[in-house]
Amino acid sequence: MWFMRQAGRYLPEYRELRGDRDILETCKDAELVAEITLQPLGRMPLDAAILFSDIMVPLAAIGVPVRIEPGRGPVVTPPIRTMADIERLRPLEPETDVPEVLEAIALLRPELDVPLIGFAGAPFTLASYLIEGGPSKNHARTKALLFGEPEMWDALMCRLTDIVSAHLLAQATAGAQVLQVFDSWVGALHPDVYRRAVEPYVRAVFDRVRASGVPTIHFGVGTGELLPFMAAAGGDGIGIDFKTPLDAGWSRAGGPAECAVQGNLDPSALLSPWETTEREVRAVLTAAGGRDGHIFNLGHGVLPSTDVAQLQRVVDLVHTDTERISA
Amino acid sequence: MWFMRQAGRYLPEYRELRGDRDILETCKDAELVAEITLQPLGRMPLDAAILFSDIMVPLAAIGVPVRIEPGRGPVVTPPIRTMADIERLRPLEPETDVPEVLEAIALLRPELDVPLIGFAGAPFTLASYLIEGGPSKNHARTKALLFGEPEMWDALMCRLTDIVSAHLLAQATAGAQVLQVFDSWVGALHPDVYRRAVEPYVRAVFDRVRASGVPTIHFGVGTGELLPFMAAAGGDGIGIDFKTPLDAGWSRAGGPAECAVQGNLDPSALLSPWETTEREVRAVLTAAGGRDGHIFNLGHGVLPSTDVAQLQRVVDLVHTDTERISA
Repeated sequence: MWFMRQAGRYLPEYRELRGDRDILETCKDAELVAEITLQPLGRMPLDAAILFSDIMVPLAAIGVPVRIEPGRGPVVTPPIRTMADIERLRPLEPETDVPEVLEAIALLRPELDVPLIGFAGAPFTLASYLIEGGPSKNHARTKALLFGEPEMWDALMCRLTDIVSAHLLAQATAGAQVLQVFDSWVGALHPDVYRRAVEPYVRAVFDRVRASGVPTIHFGVGTGELLPFMAAAGGDGIGIDFKTPLDAGWSRAGGPAECAVQGNLDPSALLSPWETTEREVRAVLTAAGGRDGHIFNLGHGVLPSTDVAQLQRVVDLVHTDTERISA
Repeated sequence: MWFMRQAGRYLPEYRELRGDRDILETCKDAELVAEITLQPLGRMPLDAAILFSDIMVPLAAIGVPVRIEPGRGPVVTPPIRTMADIERLRPLEPETDVPEVLEAIALLRPELDVPLIGFAGAPFTLASYLIEGGPSKNHARTKALLFGEPEMWDALMCRLTDIVSAHLLAQATAGAQVLQVFDSWVGALHPDVYRRAVEPYVRAVFDRVRASGVPTIHFGVGTGELLPFMAAAGGDGIGIDFKTPLDAGWSRAGGPAECAVQGNLDPSALLSPWETTEREVRAVLTAAGGRDGHIFNLGHGVLPSTDVAQLQRVVDLVHTDTERISA
């Protein structure tokens, strides 16, 4: 059990430590990154730590003009529109481009008695931010490029595949013990489009990362229709979002014989009175059926307005119920 | 065949006619509404007209402080937070509250030789705008109310059910020949939550509207997991979004023996070179398999950046291909 965004704004000690600091600036300070990564583990007995970072970190590191706007997300100005823009995306050299990421992992490993998860954004999700220039409701420009300019799309996705793979492999070498690939917005695509224009690149990422021997998790939101194809692309574990029933999602991803499954409490269910949260947590555990290979998590990140005490109670409940089921 | 938002910003004559006028103000002028509704039919041989309006019209009419912000959507200030706020949502009396909607329908019917579609937002989607105060990424406050305050949720949904039903029935009486219910954002919910907290209210809307004898269409985005339950709630036709394969969606909604199906070209596929658009249109027609009961449409509204000529070519292609299949 761990939670996406378990190190983040819902924790008062995180807000205090980060203060007014920009997220990408914060990510450049290995000691701060390590401290923030450890914060939630001081609060509750989680089964994994996830490195505090942002999917835009490797892109910022190679010179992409990106900033993270509070309450909005990554903003890229100017966005990518031409082949010349794409050609400016140079390969990532992790040791010189993101040394603080690798240093933070090295700092963290001796402090942790649970696995450390590294991560990266998947090529489609990064491409969407680069092309739209920010978060998007409909990803229309991204799809227009994907549908209308297949050569430019391929060039962009190839470069992002290289960057993402290098970033993940370097995290594994530095000591990350699990790697999660966030294809957060890929659920905007019809499965036929996913298979043609996205799956080959994600598959290449997983193929390259496999050499590290580190287990991987593959996650996106709104992926109910895509799960069989995401699972085929790669991932020892498949993340299920909060909209897809966990049992149905696990089956579509291949079932317990084929992969682990991660999820999928609705983050909004943490904003309720405890009785409701408890019922929703139990519904997830029931859908998982006490089977090995279920990683309890939310179906998306912890919301900033979440009460820490509520999350702590969820951790206790999952541990207690899981022990009861195992007994 | 018709298109969601076929009367709208992608048409130069719409932009010219509306000018700087506010959308809700525009909706109050029956002659303008009629003219805008007719505009796309002057451009291409569509099989239906849809009344130009907005799902917030009946709420504005009963005094909800809502405005439509260009490029953002409906904004409600202050949003609904308390039982007192909910109790201020009085019943809709269509003849006095939205006379211009009924008048526009009366003006349009003699002008049209295709059916006129009326519509309303569904209770959940309206509730989300009222509670969030505007468009929302995660509908967290809406879900917090739904999960945590079941009595307030029920009170709000009951009032909205009454308003929506009255609005739809009045449109039918005035002459609308089809009614579409837009539950646009309901795809944010897990199916168990939908069944418990949304389906009973939508079902009540469809039950009441059935008395009019007018056929209905039920549509939302990201509803892959919800289609069996949406179909059970009501709708002679079920709209499939652009992310769900049309054939799989039709099966989940009950199949051709149970309901018609509407959809589902990705609106972004219209922003491509013609060869690509053509391939994507043909993929939708193939998925429909030439069966009766397929209403060709997009899987969401026409994007403002769409080229009119591209949409005209789609209309021609669908007519030609459909004739070929029927022959």
